[in-house]
Amino acid sequence: MASIFSKIASKDIPGYFLAENDEFFAILDINPLAKGHTLIIPKLEVDYIFDLPADYLGRYFMFSQNVAKAMGNVLDCERIGVAVIGLEVPHAHIHLVPINNVSDIDFSLPKKTFTVDEMKAVQSDIKSKMVI
Amino acid sequence: MASIFSKIASKDIPGYFLAENDEFFAILDINPLAKGHTLIIPKLEVDYIFDLPADYLGRYFMFSQNVAKAMGNVLDCERIGVAVIGLEVPHAHIHLVPINNVSDIDFSLPKKTFTVDEMKAVQSDIKSKMVI
Repeated sequence: MASIFSKIASKDIPGYFLAENDEFFAILDINPLAKGHTLIIPKLEVDYIFDLPADYLGRYFMFSQNVAKAMGNVLDCERIGVAVIGLEVPHAHIHLVPINNVSDIDFSLPKKTFTVDEMKAVQSDIKSKMVI
Repeated sequence: MASIFSKIASKDIPGYFLAENDEFFAILDINPLAKGHTLIIPKLEVDYIFDLPADYLGRYFMFSQNVAKAMGNVLDCERIGVAVIGLEVPHAHIHLVPINNVSDIDFSLPKKTFTVDEMKAVQSDIKSKMVI
């Protein structure tokens, strides 16, 4: 059965898309640690990120770099932090999280909630800076 | 002035090396979240990971993948998690952390301490599985 991320990729489930190419796509996390928290997802449905083919993995992070640069241009943060945990959804994904402190990437923290209008506004802001 | 990581790369400061090539090296973190917690460091001394040249960034994660696979072969964990925070040392580095729970990557947790013999033992175990 297709993962929730594959269903978003095929547009069977909606997502706040930021960027997409043949191999990867970027969406806002709907359970974010911070406004603008983004997921970068390979269209290749692999559970564990380090099982991806090496060249594909390289391109995956190059794609993520483009998204992170756009995020850094519009979000109020010191850095874009990176995390890959991979224990919950069996489809690899990279978290890009706007951070100001080392404790800002902690997935046991309570998630934040934003309205649809707030999500659309940050989606629009990031997309306006995308160069993919 | 050279960063602490550049001093380790040049062997002016010792490190528990796991792997090294012309562009990157892997060492055990001496303030680990878990036994086998590893740092992957680019020899190019750049503060922010997303400022690395795109191709170099791609190779950086391919190198990390090789180290993560070796770690996964010997460490007692569900996954090798990935984190890049970058707010402390001004020289980019990837954390590869053996994890069993989503809360295992939290840099505000107290760090663990292992004896030199314990560090050498885990270094030797991981190196025995390296294919770089």
